[in-house]
Amino acid sequence: MKRFHVEVRVKPRPGLLDPEGKAIHHALDSLGYEGLAGVRVGKVIDLELAAGNREEADARAREMCRKLLANPVTEDFELAVAEAPESDDEGGQAS
Amino acid sequence: MKRFHVEVRVKPRPGLLDPEGKAIHHALDSLGYEGLAGVRVGKVIDLELAAGNREEADARAREMCRKLLANPVTEDFELAVAEAPESDDEGGQAS
Repeated sequence: MKRFHVEVRVKPRPGLLDPEGKAIHHALDSLGYEGLAGVRVGKVIDLELAAGNREEADARAREMCRKLLANPVTEDFELAVAEAPESDDEGGQAS
Repeated sequence: MKRFHVEVRVKPRPGLLDPEGKAIHHALDSLGYEGLAGVRVGKVIDLELAAGNREEADARAREMCRKLLANPVTEDFELAVAEAPESDDEGGQAS
């Protein structure tokens, strides 16, 4: 089993209301930032997981998104899978 | 002025408490997902902004992060700047 780092980005679907994004847009306008055409806010979830290979890590993360992390009615998600470096700060795990 | 899409990812600093990540970690464990070593949750903010060039877009987004989007004490942020396609669905703006 290798360790993988999966970055999941969960965003509100285009066209759906995004009150948090609207609030930030308004706040940035108030601070004097011009030329801002849109602001949308979502979540980014970093998962550290063990899997046999990259495809398995991707598949498991997608399943987590469908089951828990994203609302299938209102949100879309994207994944980025990267293999975590072997020699981490956890010390010498020879097995 | 060109239009740019800036994706800002704001994440809790390593080592700092992340109760939302802990809650998701616990929920995924309860759903039977094994081999999960860590979950961290942050925000992803999509900005659509006008700027003269990519460097200017990057600089303005960084300033927004420092002023409003990220808490400098508890959060780190990363940016990804991309030029938005000219021919959007806004119709024929010839000027």
